[in-house]
Amino acid sequence: MTFDLVIAGGTIATAADVFKADIGVKDGVITALGIGLEGAETIDATGKYVLPGGIDSHVHIDQPSGEGIVMADTFETGTLSGLFGGNTTLLPFCVQEKGKSLRDALTAYHAKAEGNCYTDVSFHLVISDPTESVLGQELPAAVADGYTSFKVFMTYENLRLNDAEILQVMDTARRTGALAMVHCENEDAIRFLIDRHVAEGRLEPLSHATTRPLAVEREATHRAITLAEVVDVPVVIVHVSNGAAMEEIERARARGMNVTGETCPQYIRLTEKDLEGMNWEGAKAVCSPPPRTEAEWDNIWRGIQTGVFDVFSSDHCPFRYDDERGKLNPKGRKDFRHVPNGIPGVETRLPILFSEGVSKGRIDITRFVALTSTNHAKTYGLYPKKGTIAVGADADIVLWDPEAETTIRHANLHDGSDYSPYEGLEVKGLPRTVILRGKVMVKDGELVGARGDGRYLPRELSMKVRRPG
Amino acid sequence: MTFDLVIAGGTIATAADVFKADIGVKDGVITALGIGLEGAETIDATGKYVLPGGIDSHVHIDQPSGEGIVMADTFETGTLSGLFGGNTTLLPFCVQEKGKSLRDALTAYHAKAEGNCYTDVSFHLVISDPTESVLGQELPAAVADGYTSFKVFMTYENLRLNDAEILQVMDTARRTGALAMVHCENEDAIRFLIDRHVAEGRLEPLSHATTRPLAVEREATHRAITLAEVVDVPVVIVHVSNGAAMEEIERARARGMNVTGETCPQYIRLTEKDLEGMNWEGAKAVCSPPPRTEAEWDNIWRGIQTGVFDVFSSDHCPFRYDDERGKLNPKGRKDFRHVPNGIPGVETRLPILFSEGVSKGRIDITRFVALTSTNHAKTYGLYPKKGTIAVGADADIVLWDPEAETTIRHANLHDGSDYSPYEGLEVKGLPRTVILRGKVMVKDGELVGARGDGRYLPRELSMKVRRPG
Amino acid sequence: MTFDLVIAGGTIATAADVFKADIGVKDGVITALGIGLEGAETIDATGKYVLPGGIDSHVHIDQPSGEGIVMADTFETGTLSGLFGGNTTLLPFCVQEKGKSLRDALTAYHAKAEGNCYTDVSFHLVISDPTESVLGQELPAAVADGYTSFKVFMTYENLRLNDAEILQVMDTARRTGALAMVHCENEDAIRFLIDRHVAEGRLEPLSHATTRPLAVEREATHRAITLAEVVDVPVVIVHVSNGAAMEEIERARARGMNVTGETCPQYIRLTEKDLEGMNWEGAKAVCSPPPRTEAEWDNIWRGIQTGVFDVFSSDHCPFRYDDERGKLNPKGRKDFRHVPNGIPGVETRLPILFSEGVSKGRIDITRFVALTSTNHAKTYGLYPKKGTIAVGADADIVLWDPEAETTIRHANLHDGSDYSPYEGLEVKGLPRTVILRGKVMVKDGELVGARGDGRYLPRELSMKVRRPG
Amino acid sequence: MTFDLVIAGGTIATAADVFKADIGVKDGVITALGIGLEGAETIDATGKYVLPGGIDSHVHIDQPSGEGIVMADTFETGTLSGLFGGNTTLLPFCVQEKGKSLRDALTAYHAKAEGNCYTDVSFHLVISDPTESVLGQELPAAVADGYTSFKVFMTYENLRLNDAEILQVMDTARRTGALAMVHCENEDAIRFLIDRHVAEGRLEPLSHATTRPLAVEREATHRAITLAEVVDVPVVIVHVSNGAAMEEIERARARGMNVTGETCPQYIRLTEKDLEGMNWEGAKAVCSPPPRTEAEWDNIWRGIQTGVFDVFSSDHCPFRYDDERGKLNPKGRKDFRHVPNGIPGVETRLPILFSEGVSKGRIDITRFVALTSTNHAKTYGLYPKKGTIAVGADADIVLWDPEAETTIRHANLHDGSDYSPYEGLEVKGLPRTVILRGKVMVKDGELVGARGDGRYLPRELSMKVRRPG
Repeated sequence: MTFDLVIAGGTIATAADVFKADIGVKDGVITALGIGLEGAETIDATGKYVLPGGIDSHVHIDQPSGEGIVMADTFETGTLSGLFGGNTTLLPFCVQEKGKSLRDALTAYHAKAEGNCYTDVSFHLVISDPTESVLGQELPAAVADGYTSFKVFMTYENLRLNDAEILQVMDTARRTGALAMVHCENEDAIRFLIDRHVAEGRLEPLSHATTRPLAVEREATHRAITLAEVVDVPVVIVHVSNGAAMEEIERARARGMNVTGETCPQYIRLTEKDLEGMNWEGAKAVCSPPPRTEAEWDNIWRGIQTGVFDVFSSDHCPFRYDDERGKLNPKGRKDFRHVPNGIPGVETRLPILFSEGVSKGRIDITRFVALTSTNHAKTYGLYPKKGTIAVGADADIVLWDPEAETTIRHANLHDGSDYSPYEGLEVKGLPRTVILRGKVMVKDGELVGARGDGRYLPRELSMKVRRPG
Repeated sequence: MTFDLVIAGGTIATAADVFKADIGVKDGVITALGIGLEGAETIDATGKYVLPGGIDSHVHIDQPSGEGIVMADTFETGTLSGLFGGNTTLLPFCVQEKGKSLRDALTAYHAKAEGNCYTDVSFHLVISDPTESVLGQELPAAVADGYTSFKVFMTYENLRLNDAEILQVMDTARRTGALAMVHCENEDAIRFLIDRHVAEGRLEPLSHATTRPLAVEREATHRAITLAEVVDVPVVIVHVSNGAAMEEIERARARGMNVTGETCPQYIRLTEKDLEGMNWEGAKAVCSPPPRTEAEWDNIWRGIQTGVFDVFSSDHCPFRYDDERGKLNPKGRKDFRHVPNGIPGVETRLPILFSEGVSKGRIDITRFVALTSTNHAKTYGLYPKKGTIAVGADADIVLWDPEAETTIRHANLHDGSDYSPYEGLEVKGLPRTVILRGKVMVKDGELVGARGDGRYLPRELSMKVRRPG
Repeated sequence: MTFDLVIAGGTIATAADVFKADIGVKDGVITALGIGLEGAETIDATGKYVLPGGIDSHVHIDQPSGEGIVMADTFETGTLSGLFGGNTTLLPFCVQEKGKSLRDALTAYHAKAEGNCYTDVSFHLVISDPTESVLGQELPAAVADGYTSFKVFMTYENLRLNDAEILQVMDTARRTGALAMVHCENEDAIRFLIDRHVAEGRLEPLSHATTRPLAVEREATHRAITLAEVVDVPVVIVHVSNGAAMEEIERARARGMNVTGETCPQYIRLTEKDLEGMNWEGAKAVCSPPPRTEAEWDNIWRGIQTGVFDVFSSDHCPFRYDDERGKLNPKGRKDFRHVPNGIPGVETRLPILFSEGVSKGRIDITRFVALTSTNHAKTYGLYPKKGTIAVGADADIVLWDPEAETTIRHANLHDGSDYSPYEGLEVKGLPRTVILRGKVMVKDGELVGARGDGRYLPRELSMKVRRPG
Repeated sequence: MTFDLVIAGGTIATAADVFKADIGVKDGVITALGIGLEGAETIDATGKYVLPGGIDSHVHIDQPSGEGIVMADTFETGTLSGLFGGNTTLLPFCVQEKGKSLRDALTAYHAKAEGNCYTDVSFHLVISDPTESVLGQELPAAVADGYTSFKVFMTYENLRLNDAEILQVMDTARRTGALAMVHCENEDAIRFLIDRHVAEGRLEPLSHATTRPLAVEREATHRAITLAEVVDVPVVIVHVSNGAAMEEIERARARGMNVTGETCPQYIRLTEKDLEGMNWEGAKAVCSPPPRTEAEWDNIWRGIQTGVFDVFSSDHCPFRYDDERGKLNPKGRKDFRHVPNGIPGVETRLPILFSEGVSKGRIDITRFVALTSTNHAKTYGLYPKKGTIAVGADADIVLWDPEAETTIRHANLHDGSDYSPYEGLEVKGLPRTVILRGKVMVKDGELVGARGDGRYLPRELSMKVRRPG
């Protein structure tokens, strides 16, 4: 057998195993693992980890963001940034607008992505208007078409669903086999605190954090899980920021529930203090849930280590900082309520977890792979084509140098924003070469792939839904 | 010093102490505890416990109940029943109707009570329509007038408040020093389950329980507590039915919160099976939260013993069973959704707790007094005039025979309903003589007091609010 | 009725109630509570709290302490110090020496106390050598004679019992109705850590704390409780220092066990840092378990507030500091292993709890009374003669000035030591007058009673054993 | 490349992945995974799962068992039984006798195994006499020689170590990098309960369970973990039988500790009732810890699903039932204290877990592989040669038919005992072909390998010790 491409001499890591072998690729698919394989092209991976390409199942790209605000990434810049960060698949959210159909949203979103991607992509839906026709016809049709997961929000005035609506959406998930994801923060409580802050004249970025205290996330997490318990359906709790919310997941599992937990880099590297910056620098760290404290970092690490968290995502949601249509828009520079909510991170997710986790001895390489790739594929219906290095899988592969060191500088990143919240962070361990379905996209840190090489991926039902464990 | 009345030779129990002494009463007030006291009238209490009169801080009397349904008790029958059950003070709820003022509700409710009571009474408010004028003017005025506690509902379509409204009511409690009580069940989840049950044709009384599973109470309990945490105000969780909801109170206290817990006889003596009865007998046990299982009885007892629960109330809410305007109204006899929600219990509360608790060795007599009288008085601003046997307190006194035994039969009770959910239960320990502000109302089981002997009591702020611990 | 003594005009507090009344005393016993009582002698208590005399159920007095070391208090100084601290009853430990009989120990200890006490006293036994005759004859006889509680140690080479021995002692408690107390620290683990510290040359006082980390207390606490669970007998966990050990008590109660918890002033006012002092000043805070951290103070307060702790004792165990036979004995000044273990505190217990608890709003006055007097009497078989203000109780009474302020200075204390670990602590709320069985012992801060006024008290079985709850 | 052996057409499962591929084997090692591989010999695995050979890290074989008692398996029968059960590696315990050296024990044990094995084997040590020379010289030398794990017992009179000894053994583990395993039951408490049972004449097999209640296991588990915490060393808690002990592992991990949990088939399929059998049939289920209740099965399943348990072992410890030297020896048939302790299970472990777990939908196939093979190899220093299907690993492979069904009958098993505690249990999913280092040992259920084909394996340090996570 000869191969189109052989990746030779590296140390392969999957979510369970670490072993030395060559990888043989044919027609974009891994067709062999062995010793001394030969191919038309050979990449020397000596001294490198050879990992399945990162899958980031929580990113926001080119999403409508309200009057005068523009998200900093198009599919072109967003997927390019993701690619350089070691990712081969991204899952952004396609948001239904109130009063509009899912089909409209999907048509528009596909148009934005089409021909512009450097990685493969697939879309979660966001349900903001669960009318009878959406729940009865559109959503089942969308699931059948491969949009097998959707998110609901318990916060944000224009997106939040009330409990009755969430129950209906979850019930649709139950009927269709789709997987429901929930953003858990109690909007009414936040609103109450915002009113208090405004009355006290506390309008600076830090108020974004103090109006969204840990308790409002813990409450909504418990509520979302209970609603899923009432419906009897699995649920994903996204971007968990603290130990108390984490404990809700643990308690639910102890009751026998099927709950998937997600956390993000901001909850192991940023704190509330990052919102305190002078001159509204704090706006750079405004995201929801807000970063907490260093003590909560320890809680989150425990969850990463013991399995409370299945997936580690970026929640990449980029805005420019010093920009009329970004963080410091005319209103935003005076009032935290008008600072666009979200931070960039698709390119820094893997280096931060590797550096803080693997290099510092908190997790091993197999857990890294599970958290950043395999579990995403299994959770969101992409496995076994994506998420692992095995015969039959797409040749989505990253050559990772565990010894490479750098300091994060936005100047070196590829997203459309103008800053990184991790500016100055030293990391050890970096992706060097990224291969997408057998095609080398980044070689030793240089772009060799092209816009449009990434494809759209319809998805199967989640393995979380199909089977337990 | 001579006394109007001396109660001689009994064993006095307070919430902390047990001792033998005579009680001297003058002008309706306890003015001495001593040995060999003499008075114009003497009651021999030899062999009896001499206890502070029961205070039942959770009863519903003559409350408007929707089209065609009539609550089974007027103030006359409700307080008479309470009196025979060993109570000297009842706290029913005065319910604001949507679109109406608190003042209207109070005026109407006072009119019903005036001149008709056999026990002292005071009113909690129920806030169903927290308009700006209610929160800004009416409620503060009511608190100043001695209505120092109010309840909000998280269930029942016509009463439920959403989280934003609950926050506003709690914030008013914070500003005025009043105490907020919450009925914790998630209405949306119940509604969802009711729809499921109806679709499946499950309309029998048991569906009342299965549409209100433990999870919906646990959820709402955690949420109510969190809303109080956000506002920073004490809160009372009423009628806790199970260990999971109880655990929410414990978790909150571990976070440093000031939460008061209440439970009721139905949660240590009834189970879901009582709703299964043939011929719609199950309707007799329809109340919210519904009774659970015998395993939950054990959890509730643990809460009673270890202090999770501060007060043990009846949640007396009587309807006639075999009656066109009661449980078996024309719609109710076909569909659980139309069975009036609530059970009688004001007369059986103390005997059940004494028999199951003190006689069976689960709690001692001081804990009995705390749970049935003292803690109610402290929690709801009636202490130290009510709730204890001490110099200066009203002479509200019960002579309790710890050895008397009977079988509960509705035929022997005094409420306006036509059944007891505890029919046939054998109890050991009964109130024999009940004294209200120095006047003997029940003597050896016979009524000697008169309608109208009971007074209305304005209240101070709760000690829960005034001081910690 | 006329009285020998009337305490007039004060605010009486019991473990449940607060009310204004005069107290009438006859023959050393409270015979009346009322208004306008008259007696041969009247004490004006206007503006004062009138409380039951403090009972300190955990003190060490004149206990043999190993070669060359002498405990700083005789019964004379120890009870005098206790008296000035607002106590009317102390319960020191009578320690069986290995190879000796209980009777020997009791005879010797009675001889020390006889005629020397300023407060009433009663003795717990310490069982260090549970031979067959001790368990089979001596201990049952001692219980019958009113020594109804005994302590075992899980630490200290000369006192510790192994699990098999503890089980036998607990089984004897079960058979006799006596109450077992346990000092919970894992001696083997401490020994292991001591060896490590010695090998590393870490001999300073702080090593006393680092060789007795929280984990060794948590472990032993869980073990002691489990042994009691196996035997099926109530148990007292003495001097709990931290939240983890506290959690063991909570977990046990959740399993239905009857566990009493005790804590002490050192665990809400001292920390490990107090052992760090230069010039071996740290030796002044050497006690077991060692003080922990300020974060643990919060945990202990939660336990005090929510009822994990039933009793608050001093664990008074005084040694002189700058003394050849005290803390700085020739060996002790060079090696933490030879610093006598224990601190004085019988006189400062009540002021510290009142000041930090009541004056600072953490607990109310009834909880203060329960923790410092009533629960001790109930737990150790002295109730209802001791521990409350009620008709029939001994007139053991303290007049407490809640507004008096002072700074703790050993110069003003009355024990036999030469320092206080709380030197410099400002407290608000002080005992001013102390009455023992109707006799004024301290009047407005001046001694008027005499050595020998205190009596020995045989005790009934504990109410913890006699009844649940 | 050509292969000695190709396993073609099956569905390979690792601890993370499931995929279709052929396996190429050369010189006993897996050298390729691919499509259409060709070799000298080809096994058709169509329709089968192709799994890494089972590793059973907790078995007892031919272990000295006290006067007159003989363990039912030699290495020949034990490894043959293991092989037919789908295992390719077993780890029995080599037990140090009191007063003897480790070297003596190893020499004797190697002699028993040499030339007799049908699977590969490696030995854990059991330390029963931790003298200075054992800890200082022998044990470090043994670790260096590849005996990288050892177990200590907290129960059994002849094996138990006290806490001081356990600390020393754990400290040796810390110094050498070896992994300590602990059998957790409190011997003193068991002894106490045995005395009670004997005094009450309760000598039947059920008393084995009632003298070893859940509490004694929970206690010892917490203690063992705390001792490891004091020493600062990882620890394995073997054969956890219930949720309370499991909770100790979870609590420890929440404190940041590195604890590995093991459970066994008896704790998901046997209960205390199995010890009740008439005619001493209950003796067949006598093992320690004893089986519990069906409610505990649920707890154990939760632990299996959520990762509390890393390894699922048999604790195979076989005795003949109807035998003078087995369960019903002359003393054993009259007194539970003389019934040999242990049950056979090496051949039924994998079918039971597959059937109850995978076939019934409780776990997926990757979790099955992790629990039965991969995690054993990683935990005990055999990875990556053993425990997975990957290039470079030994070709230890099982072809598993997920649809095959059978009823467990001892007549069909291969161990040396005369009964199975699972007699009559229906299972779905069975091993059909077993390959050891490339050699087919069992083919379609028939033995084709030979005694002596199994080798002894020296081991590396555990990955649990080498790295976190």
